[in-house]
Amino acid sequence: MAYNLLKGKRGVIFGALNEMSIAWKVAERAVEEGAQILLTNTPVSLRLGTINTLAEKCGALVVPADATSVEELENLVDKALEHFGGKIDFVLHSVGMSPNVRKNIPYEDLNYVNMFKTIDISAVSFHKLLQTLYKKDAMADYGSVVALSYIAAQRTVEGYSDMAEAKAMLESIARSFGAVYGRKCNVRVNTVSQSPTMTTAGQGIAGLQKMYDFTDELSPLGNASADECADYVVTLFSDLTRKVTMQNLYHDGGYSMMGISNSVIEKFNK
Amino acid sequence: MAYNLLKGKRGVIFGALNEMSIAWKVAERAVEEGAQILLTNTPVSLRLGTINTLAEKCGALVVPADATSVEELENLVDKALEHFGGKIDFVLHSVGMSPNVRKNIPYEDLNYVNMFKTIDISAVSFHKLLQTLYKKDAMADYGSVVALSYIAAQRTVEGYSDMAEAKAMLESIARSFGAVYGRKCNVRVNTVSQSPTMTTAGQGIAGLQKMYDFTDELSPLGNASADECADYVVTLFSDLTRKVTMQNLYHDGGYSMMGISNSVIEKFNK
Amino acid sequence: MAYNLLKGKRGVIFGALNEMSIAWKVAERAVEEGAQILLTNTPVSLRLGTINTLAEKCGALVVPADATSVEELENLVDKALEHFGGKIDFVLHSVGMSPNVRKNIPYEDLNYVNMFKTIDISAVSFHKLLQTLYKKDAMADYGSVVALSYIAAQRTVEGYSDMAEAKAMLESIARSFGAVYGRKCNVRVNTVSQSPTMTTAGQGIAGLQKMYDFTDELSPLGNASADECADYVVTLFSDLTRKVTMQNLYHDGGYSMMGISNSVIEKFNK
Amino acid sequence: MAYNLLKGKRGVIFGALNEMSIAWKVAERAVEEGAQILLTNTPVSLRLGTINTLAEKCGALVVPADATSVEELENLVDKALEHFGGKIDFVLHSVGMSPNVRKNIPYEDLNYVNMFKTIDISAVSFHKLLQTLYKKDAMADYGSVVALSYIAAQRTVEGYSDMAEAKAMLESIARSFGAVYGRKCNVRVNTVSQSPTMTTAGQGIAGLQKMYDFTDELSPLGNASADECADYVVTLFSDLTRKVTMQNLYHDGGYSMMGISNSVIEKFNK
Repeated sequence: MAYNLLKGKRGVIFGALNEMSIAWKVAERAVEEGAQILLTNTPVSLRLGTINTLAEKCGALVVPADATSVEELENLVDKALEHFGGKIDFVLHSVGMSPNVRKNIPYEDLNYVNMFKTIDISAVSFHKLLQTLYKKDAMADYGSVVALSYIAAQRTVEGYSDMAEAKAMLESIARSFGAVYGRKCNVRVNTVSQSPTMTTAGQGIAGLQKMYDFTDELSPLGNASADECADYVVTLFSDLTRKVTMQNLYHDGGYSMMGISNSVIEKFNK
Repeated sequence: MAYNLLKGKRGVIFGALNEMSIAWKVAERAVEEGAQILLTNTPVSLRLGTINTLAEKCGALVVPADATSVEELENLVDKALEHFGGKIDFVLHSVGMSPNVRKNIPYEDLNYVNMFKTIDISAVSFHKLLQTLYKKDAMADYGSVVALSYIAAQRTVEGYSDMAEAKAMLESIARSFGAVYGRKCNVRVNTVSQSPTMTTAGQGIAGLQKMYDFTDELSPLGNASADECADYVVTLFSDLTRKVTMQNLYHDGGYSMMGISNSVIEKFNK
Repeated sequence: MAYNLLKGKRGVIFGALNEMSIAWKVAERAVEEGAQILLTNTPVSLRLGTINTLAEKCGALVVPADATSVEELENLVDKALEHFGGKIDFVLHSVGMSPNVRKNIPYEDLNYVNMFKTIDISAVSFHKLLQTLYKKDAMADYGSVVALSYIAAQRTVEGYSDMAEAKAMLESIARSFGAVYGRKCNVRVNTVSQSPTMTTAGQGIAGLQKMYDFTDELSPLGNASADECADYVVTLFSDLTRKVTMQNLYHDGGYSMMGISNSVIEKFNK
Repeated sequence: MAYNLLKGKRGVIFGALNEMSIAWKVAERAVEEGAQILLTNTPVSLRLGTINTLAEKCGALVVPADATSVEELENLVDKALEHFGGKIDFVLHSVGMSPNVRKNIPYEDLNYVNMFKTIDISAVSFHKLLQTLYKKDAMADYGSVVALSYIAAQRTVEGYSDMAEAKAMLESIARSFGAVYGRKCNVRVNTVSQSPTMTTAGQGIAGLQKMYDFTDELSPLGNASADECADYVVTLFSDLTRKVTMQNLYHDGGYSMMGISNSVIEKFNK
């Protein structure tokens, strides 16, 4: 069901690899809600994934950009401003990757070249994006920027490794830049802390299925799906949430506020 | 602007005293978004305020109920089910009052009869409401319940007195009952932690204007208004936020995530 | 091992029922560290428990007091000031009980007479105690007050019922009164959020053993024991922690900061 | 006053530049409490500061090490094990620097080479240190590691710039590595979130004096001093806090739990 929540709005969406991606779902929902969008991802991801299918469906322009490259971000923002013929109303940052996690390197044996890559890709890229938008004065007044996060930023999830640090930094950037951009022109910056999701990126984490089952059991509403996440993100892009900023918003079926449930205890004690 | 976000939904709204009330704004917005609503408040508030004006405007039934009385809540819920001819989709709890605050009694000289009244009216009433809804199986699957809170639940605001304790308890009830109601039939329960707002209730707090100015300065987006709060609450009642539960959601222009701003420091040091 | 950390200090300790009690351990450790103490509990608990054994061992005066009665607290504080011949340096509030939990009443069927008892005994008693101390100017400058809490104040623990609300309020009182008492004469007020502990009170919670095992597994250091809690509380009474106030301090082997551990996942998925 | 709290313990202390440094105070207090210590800092800081005065006073060995260099950390740990003739009981990480802050570069115009330096020096160095200790099995069972943090990790402090991100990451590393090291041999890892302090490093932050005055006014106990911080850190190194891990512990006179105080409002509104 669609409500025209984003009618007339223009947005840039990072990270739609394939139809399992949260960003893919956000793109679809944003268009359903009346937005015009531009899709972007790294050149490698553009080749590996199926973004053109999405672009066609959404009538979207695709502009390649490595989010760790300020130059490519500048090019992206220029292209977006030109393509839209005006400023950007919303942006989704759904970018993250840890070579340490991919290679199953234990947290007590991290490779630091990898770690800086994790941080650059998964956290500093968000600052680079915001700073590029800011310098080019590319966001419309009352615009909205959302990045995807995970509860490992607050509580240790074994196996998530240095992505915990990256997400902690990502959320900090949302606060810090939210303060700056809010004062400038009422742009809000938030992170959505989403349930473990069966995306291609998620599947790179060893043992995700077991974690998924555990949090699904502990969460009173069960894990939140990628589709539900897209619904939620749409509200954050809309004009109905104009005073919500610098927040980390849990979209997780209540998981973050659960300590112990009877059903988890039962399964645990079997 | 309206989106039909609550089309076909039916809700009960507590606490619309007069047109300055947040609840009043929520009622108006809910109806604009397509909902059918029922208004309720204590008999005294019904007399003191101007709820009938709102009821007429919204085509709403008004049912008196003291939220501290389980009997009156039972009657209210029965009336709502009957009036709607079906279950309730959303509820707003905007109820709070401290006799200690009203009488300007210092926090180190609290009257405990007053304190239990504060707690009953401002916090336990929320449990009574939820328990009544639960026992009567009155909430529709995927329904949404929101209560209004304030950051004094987390951080001491001098002058807010025992309302801090009431709000801390209110938010705890949202978590505890959210876990129960979520497992039962996917009903979500959240609190919205709103900026200081110039309502009739707010004006009962000594020095509200000064607090208001301070938080307005510190918040990158400024204080959130009652109208903006209504917009936000509407998203929480909608189907787009189905996996958000047990949360305390700051709607405060970023205040909660601010430590120190340059402008506050400047004014402070003058 | 003892360090004379509390040499010359005088303290009042609530809640030492028997040798399993955390308060019992705190009393023993405080005396080992050089303090003079006064023990108190409700008349019923004094009869049911074995406090006299402790009193003899510690050379402590025992003064009965129901912590929900301002009158009895006044009497207690008067007796303490007289007995010590001077002001009080530290106080432990280890008081909590829920008739709803005791009677295994589900959270969605709470009896409100019970709930107000829970709140009065487990939370408001802390305000009554602090207010009595404050009005009688009974705390020495740089004194320290500690109350025992539990993580259910932040995250839902099924089975802990309305004690969650009581602990949330208890922690709020520590903040609110900490602000007042700190400005007056540098008295600090904190809560210690302790692991599930096999005390007589703890054993009143249905399924405590299973919860205990679960948190023991999830916590990197395992659950904290009553003895360890006493060690920690002693540091908070000492002069080494004079600027720590209004905090909720987790003493739980790291449980509060854990999301998911491999070993819990393994047991869960068996 | 000394208590022999660290009698027989051996510790490594980073970051004692001069007698204003928190690390300097911790070193002095640790020795007073019976510990044997080893001091370390970067070669540049060793030259610029007055560490030799401290070393003489404390009978401490000084080993230069750049905390961003794994090689130098390995050398440091080897030297410490050799010097002590046994494992290390405690470590203080008091290391942080942002070239962006030093050069007064605005947060919306960050230089990313600088930012990665900030992160490496102020956050990743903590992981490098812990990993080096871990791989060399250099920490004694029940050892304790503390790093110094600041509330900008949670709430935006304008002017603190990318150090906010560094501190958020630092605290995340404490959690993540605390989980690992706790399971291995009960080593605990915590951060202390300290009031603004008039150290040489602190003075590098533009407008520190004004921030200092503001937080001093808002904190019920006033700002915590470097001396008081040293007292507190000593308790965390002692055997009395063995089950406290993965925590960020506020040592700030209550600042972190304050929203608004009357006196701040008065000054603000003048």
